[in-house]
Amino acid sequence: MTRKIGVIGMGNVGSTVAHYIVSSGSADDLVLIDTNEKKVQADAIDFEDAMANLPTHTNITVNDYSALADADIIISAVGQIKLQDNAGDDRFAELPFTSVQVKDVAQKIKESGFHGVIVAITNPVDVITSIYQEVTGLPKNQVIGTGTLLDSARMKRAVAKGLDIDPRSVTGYNLGEHGNSQFTAWSTVRALGRPVTEIATERGLNLDEIDHDARIGGYVVFRGKGYTNYGVATAAVRLANVVLNDAHEELPVSNYRKELDTYLSYPAIVGRNGIVEQLQLKLTDEELAKLQTSADFIKTKFAESMQ
Amino acid sequence: MTRKIGVIGMGNVGSTVAHYIVSSGSADDLVLIDTNEKKVQADAIDFEDAMANLPTHTNITVNDYSALADADIIISAVGQIKLQDNAGDDRFAELPFTSVQVKDVAQKIKESGFHGVIVAITNPVDVITSIYQEVTGLPKNQVIGTGTLLDSARMKRAVAKGLDIDPRSVTGYNLGEHGNSQFTAWSTVRALGRPVTEIATERGLNLDEIDHDARIGGYVVFRGKGYTNYGVATAAVRLANVVLNDAHEELPVSNYRKELDTYLSYPAIVGRNGIVEQLQLKLTDEELAKLQTSADFIKTKFAESMQ
Amino acid sequence: MTRKIGVIGMGNVGSTVAHYIVSSGSADDLVLIDTNEKKVQADAIDFEDAMANLPTHTNITVNDYSALADADIIISAVGQIKLQDNAGDDRFAELPFTSVQVKDVAQKIKESGFHGVIVAITNPVDVITSIYQEVTGLPKNQVIGTGTLLDSARMKRAVAKGLDIDPRSVTGYNLGEHGNSQFTAWSTVRALGRPVTEIATERGLNLDEIDHDARIGGYVVFRGKGYTNYGVATAAVRLANVVLNDAHEELPVSNYRKELDTYLSYPAIVGRNGIVEQLQLKLTDEELAKLQTSADFIKTKFAESMQ
Amino acid sequence: MTRKIGVIGMGNVGSTVAHYIVSSGSADDLVLIDTNEKKVQADAIDFEDAMANLPTHTNITVNDYSALADADIIISAVGQIKLQDNAGDDRFAELPFTSVQVKDVAQKIKESGFHGVIVAITNPVDVITSIYQEVTGLPKNQVIGTGTLLDSARMKRAVAKGLDIDPRSVTGYNLGEHGNSQFTAWSTVRALGRPVTEIATERGLNLDEIDHDARIGGYVVFRGKGYTNYGVATAAVRLANVVLNDAHEELPVSNYRKELDTYLSYPAIVGRNGIVEQLQLKLTDEELAKLQTSADFIKTKFAESMQ
Repeated sequence: MTRKIGVIGMGNVGSTVAHYIVSSGSADDLVLIDTNEKKVQADAIDFEDAMANLPTHTNITVNDYSALADADIIISAVGQIKLQDNAGDDRFAELPFTSVQVKDVAQKIKESGFHGVIVAITNPVDVITSIYQEVTGLPKNQVIGTGTLLDSARMKRAVAKGLDIDPRSVTGYNLGEHGNSQFTAWSTVRALGRPVTEIATERGLNLDEIDHDARIGGYVVFRGKGYTNYGVATAAVRLANVVLNDAHEELPVSNYRKELDTYLSYPAIVGRNGIVEQLQLKLTDEELAKLQTSADFIKTKFAESMQ
Repeated sequence: MTRKIGVIGMGNVGSTVAHYIVSSGSADDLVLIDTNEKKVQADAIDFEDAMANLPTHTNITVNDYSALADADIIISAVGQIKLQDNAGDDRFAELPFTSVQVKDVAQKIKESGFHGVIVAITNPVDVITSIYQEVTGLPKNQVIGTGTLLDSARMKRAVAKGLDIDPRSVTGYNLGEHGNSQFTAWSTVRALGRPVTEIATERGLNLDEIDHDARIGGYVVFRGKGYTNYGVATAAVRLANVVLNDAHEELPVSNYRKELDTYLSYPAIVGRNGIVEQLQLKLTDEELAKLQTSADFIKTKFAESMQ
Repeated sequence: MTRKIGVIGMGNVGSTVAHYIVSSGSADDLVLIDTNEKKVQADAIDFEDAMANLPTHTNITVNDYSALADADIIISAVGQIKLQDNAGDDRFAELPFTSVQVKDVAQKIKESGFHGVIVAITNPVDVITSIYQEVTGLPKNQVIGTGTLLDSARMKRAVAKGLDIDPRSVTGYNLGEHGNSQFTAWSTVRALGRPVTEIATERGLNLDEIDHDARIGGYVVFRGKGYTNYGVATAAVRLANVVLNDAHEELPVSNYRKELDTYLSYPAIVGRNGIVEQLQLKLTDEELAKLQTSADFIKTKFAESMQ
Repeated sequence: MTRKIGVIGMGNVGSTVAHYIVSSGSADDLVLIDTNEKKVQADAIDFEDAMANLPTHTNITVNDYSALADADIIISAVGQIKLQDNAGDDRFAELPFTSVQVKDVAQKIKESGFHGVIVAITNPVDVITSIYQEVTGLPKNQVIGTGTLLDSARMKRAVAKGLDIDPRSVTGYNLGEHGNSQFTAWSTVRALGRPVTEIATERGLNLDEIDHDARIGGYVVFRGKGYTNYGVATAAVRLANVVLNDAHEELPVSNYRKELDTYLSYPAIVGRNGIVEQLQLKLTDEELAKLQTSADFIKTKFAESMQ
């Protein structure tokens, strides 16, 4: 009846998500929520100051959880990136803060009557996505994390640079935790019509280096400006659009895998109800071991966060 | 042969401008320049991390003035918003800093061989636009400031809210300085098929309040988040697109008016060569007096800045 | 919950409307209906053959009225342009055919449970819009015709050409019937910050010629290719987007005016429920007389068509 | 300096290509050419009638070959689809007509001084692309046919329908002639993270049927409406955008393969200079044989057409 998206958390990422939605006209109604009332009001006015110069119109509501009752999607960008400042390369520095925040937000989402799809960006995203599902009680398929959709894009960027091609012409996935235990599943990565592992040597690609770069890619950006926002916001809005369109597109996102008993990133078919189908990759034994390690790590952290 | 845009200054505004260009696919080539090498590199990587999830591709070059030689447009977002922190509502707090910076940037632009259109956002924008023209020696029509394109959008937002209509359904202009001496030229503002002055009383619009709001609109946003970026970035990119398209669209932007002997905002027809034609409004005597006051103020400040 | 649009009639106009919706990603779900089963199936497959090369996804349903129950908008492009071939410049040549067709379609729309907004393009559009409202029993504000949104665009094109400016920089309306009794309400037309009547002489604009051109603009295109489609399809999709966005934008469209007791084109504020507010222009006596003449003509034709 | 595209041939396909470019704002300048002066003028006016209701502006020039001198891309949609009416499923029915036309057009392109990239849609496309290259004398990498970019999209549509996924989530190619000798290279087709040949049986996909459907897909649409336009126009505009963006995206298009000594469809990396790199697939022996057969057929037809 309308495309309605809620964005919770108006920090660097959430406001970039909201701007991308407003500037691209992806939603008809946009609900912005933040505990910092001044910040969210300032962003809302700033978006409205843009509208006379935009081709589309978006109706904006501020800090009203009840407006989420009939939203299609809620994007969670709750976070406090400053907690990362002295944390080194570890997305878990934010967990003690974000897990408390997210439980509160999730409870309010539940009380709003929301019954759409939650897209979590908040880090550590796999644990946070689990918390959202647990607290809201929404079906598991309706709660998704952006996960390695971003890391896969980083891997594609690095492979594409090495081959002088467009990142969209690289296929394949980073799997597992959107964090240090993730890995590029090289058995799935293809470019120029062939497995990348086959062409790496002849084309001078150092796969270990690319794997490392993709995993720490966020930290390079983070150290350069104190946060990352454009890559992850783009991943989140792409995911939201796939849900709105009911596109059934294949995306590596954080979704609940029963055999691993946890949320973690693994490609899935995404549509209006969230996860429509889960892929069954033929991974190598080494990749399967890495995936298990990553799953175990996320489960442990999730258990801790719910104590 | 390609759409090529340079963005100089990767602060809150410049990076938002660049993101909007990348996410909307407005340019084929994008040149990003900032004296903070780490910041501009971080933004460039962040944009490239977005590209696997975007429908269009943009080629990004970093900190290479020579790449501007064949650019269509340079958008100047040089600035240091922190200088505003204790300045109250005065965009001139940045001038001592930005005027020095901009002279240096303008000299480098000149040396690059650039011969396109400069779009200045840097505040105080009318003075800065004057400096760009003076130092680069580009024809006056090829140097434009976003000026009151933003303030007019703010006025439209306020009028539109009061009438419960779309800001794009309000026409008219804020004129003069993009600063405290500007004013809404109410004789030009129309909505619902009539002059707004005619319907204000019956519809409960307080025009003085709206005028004031538009003038200080930026400060409300500024006080809420420490900067403004979405409204002004949208205005700048719209202006850039009008230049690229050679659209000959009418926009209130900062352009050089011979009879006032200064840059200031006044509606003009904009195309590939920048200012194609200047409007000749029938302003009231009061509006003409305000325009002269605003012009005198800008001229004084410009003279000071060139000493 | 989704943007869902139905398009009824897959002739030159309807298929162009559908293509524009698919290529711009304006809708998530698209229902295509035509009595020519082979044609509508061919178009649906042709659109699906486009999708692997498009950035967005649209789900297409063919010839299923029940799918309209929860549609936001139905665009009626039912028609048989060949009936115009020997008709000279008269959109009423199609009425005997289209009025029968439209009554049938309207009945099926009613039975589907549709409760959104109908956008009629079918000619003679003011009479057809009246029929849709009458037969479906939908509230008058929810049934709209594209009307002179197209003719106003033609007038703007002609004025803009004469002034060497962008048509979007001309404001004002053609009013009345989308047919031979329409007229340009010159008292409403403005460009370059002034009434066009004031600048016509100095800028060499022949307003009578432009008025005539706008009224017969469609026939020039019609005689060149046997139909018109791009201008009117663009008007219809713009109108649909304004409804979806709940933008409250001002558009000259065919809407029911109580004081004239008929549908005819007159600017209105358009939102999710269709007509949100009707403008009250200050027309000249001559314009008022023309409007009355146009209204009388439409009422007579509507009465005939319902006999 | 601007994005400038020429479209030659304003039939069903050419006018759809032009409309898509105008409605999406892909080009700043558009040159439309057709021997039917009335038709091309009618389309140009129809596009201009759309512009007041569009967010972007496109400058249109009609029937002026000299305007192509600095165009980035020329899209050839010359053709006469009615010649197919009694031809059965054979795109060569048009060749005697189109080869004569295209030689004339190519000569005029050469004389214009055009030095950009030619995108040929005209059928039989591989032969026609060869003629364009031969007559214009442009480097082989700058002359491309849309080829099986469309057939691959049709194959993806069919596979995607069978798997209930998005066509964009299917990778792989149809190779060879855009005509009856083409084939789906199943060794290259992947979906759900696996080769489609592996999952076909378990998912109930009949690959022979899909192969056949993709090859004759155009004929189903053709028989339903007498022409095909949306799928092929979308492929052509996507290809044009990849050239404009210098995206280096991988696309299966008709390009000159030295080892086969002919134009035919085979994936390549496409950028501003056209073909940037040619892929080297590991095809099966059966696929290689089919490719050779297809190449031989095209070469024979090309030789005949140049006698």
